[in-house]
Amino acid sequence: MGERDLTGRAVADGILAEVAAEVQALGEAHWPPKLVSITVGDESAVDVYVRNQRRTAESVGIAFETRRLPERITQEELRAAIAALNVDPQVSGIILQRPVPKHISIKAMQTTIHPLKDVEGMNPASIGNIVYNELELAPCTALAAVEMLKRTGLQLQGLEAVVIGHSEIVGKPIAFLLLSEGATVTVCHHMTRSLAVHSRRADAVFVAVGKPKLVTGDMIKPGAAVIDIGINEVIDDEGKSRVVGDVDYDSVAPVAGWITPVPGGVGPVTVAVLMRNTVVATRRQKAHYEARLGASTF
Amino acid sequence: MGERDLTGRAVADGILAEVAAEVQALGEAHWPPKLVSITVGDESAVDVYVRNQRRTAESVGIAFETRRLPERITQEELRAAIAALNVDPQVSGIILQRPVPKHISIKAMQTTIHPLKDVEGMNPASIGNIVYNELELAPCTALAAVEMLKRTGLQLQGLEAVVIGHSEIVGKPIAFLLLSEGATVTVCHHMTRSLAVHSRRADAVFVAVGKPKLVTGDMIKPGAAVIDIGINEVIDDEGKSRVVGDVDYDSVAPVAGWITPVPGGVGPVTVAVLMRNTVVATRRQKAHYEARLGASTF
Repeated sequence: MGERDLTGRAVADGILAEVAAEVQALGEAHWPPKLVSITVGDESAVDVYVRNQRRTAESVGIAFETRRLPERITQEELRAAIAALNVDPQVSGIILQRPVPKHISIKAMQTTIHPLKDVEGMNPASIGNIVYNELELAPCTALAAVEMLKRTGLQLQGLEAVVIGHSEIVGKPIAFLLLSEGATVTVCHHMTRSLAVHSRRADAVFVAVGKPKLVTGDMIKPGAAVIDIGINEVIDDEGKSRVVGDVDYDSVAPVAGWITPVPGGVGPVTVAVLMRNTVVATRRQKAHYEARLGASTF
Repeated sequence: MGERDLTGRAVADGILAEVAAEVQALGEAHWPPKLVSITVGDESAVDVYVRNQRRTAESVGIAFETRRLPERITQEELRAAIAALNVDPQVSGIILQRPVPKHISIKAMQTTIHPLKDVEGMNPASIGNIVYNELELAPCTALAAVEMLKRTGLQLQGLEAVVIGHSEIVGKPIAFLLLSEGATVTVCHHMTRSLAVHSRRADAVFVAVGKPKLVTGDMIKPGAAVIDIGINEVIDDEGKSRVVGDVDYDSVAPVAGWITPVPGGVGPVTVAVLMRNTVVATRRQKAHYEARLGASTF
């Protein structure tokens, strides 16, 4: 770890401490938060993520239930399963683990998750709300990445930010979040003519592409903040499997003012934000029911 | 009009000719498109727009009905009025004219309009769908502005585009639309430190701020496309009221490769796009009903 490292563990712990206090208060108000995780078919690819989510949830007092659905489930059956969770007042948040089998449209299923229970922030309606500057329930990775930038203490208003990667659930939401904070934002991607021209003028660079060593030291302005959201499995010189980001750490670290390592940077914060989203969702559901029923009776 | 002018009338007429053919086909399939325009309270500010929408709708065979609601209507009453239109199979699209009285939340009302009937593309769910690259039902002005850029024949993939203005219904949707077309996009606004540095490197500049003469010739790269979305009423030297855009036409026109005049640029195309959105919405509703009822019986 270098001295310019912007590590995630302390940030995550700070978020989780706040979440734990809120979970306790919600429990005392008879609204204990509860997450339901759905996996469809082979879950070996997501197993480590799900276990991490469960451990984190339970550490702050959030109940965590897993539903394992068979590979051969039809889209309509999955839709019905989600609809049942939507109307279950005991369920605060629904996580649909990716990937899902090819015969199921992930977008259609994300749209089925009620926006009030969309703790991953992936329903188009949730994404649209970010565009309208309602920033609380955004995709977890995007929120975590922006949270890391805030920890640098840089003033976000007027900041020149460059986002590399234009995915719906990471790159674009980071761009809206930064815009809402007053940054000037450029979104680059594989069709960008000269990536380095953009990255070199940026005060903050976010990278979410999935290409090891895409960003090198000569592409970064001295003193800039570099937030690495890539997660890539590579085989190192000794034949061992390692996880690396999209940033060439060795060449960027001496140039950057701040850099998030991979692993140990944005990752732990993402899971903490998922828990915070769960508390936000639970609070909204409580408010929603109370506005209609006049009291908290669940 | 200069030779570099990118005028909207011909573009609008081309769109409207296609729309008229589709309206006829939908009518023959017993799905005649119909728009309902809602104004609340004093309508003098929107009167000219509504008349223009009606004239354009009727010119392509789309029925146009106006509902004038009183200033004192409550938000719940307005919500109920919109809900009734949502479930009326004869209504294809709902336009909520702005401004609305202060006691009504425009965002809450736009969220009430069913996404299938959201011809203005302003429901957060509609906006979220653009983020997910479903571009058909986007806010009309944003679609019209991008349509104008396409008429230049410039290749959008890899194009360097700068959007000045970050409003939810114009600036940000233009940014997503351009991103979906493969452009590299920078969004600037009143907090941007050096606007000219960005605008001067752009192949295409979109301006949607509402400030006359914000963009001057020295801010534009020679040969760039300049799309002016501003609509400002100013009093000229002779004391007469005139409508101007956000671009200083006289200094920009000699530098730009293309420039949209105001009036007569993006404006006419916006209304044409509203009609195209109405046809898109009607087709979707037809598909939606038929998928559930097995036939077209309305």
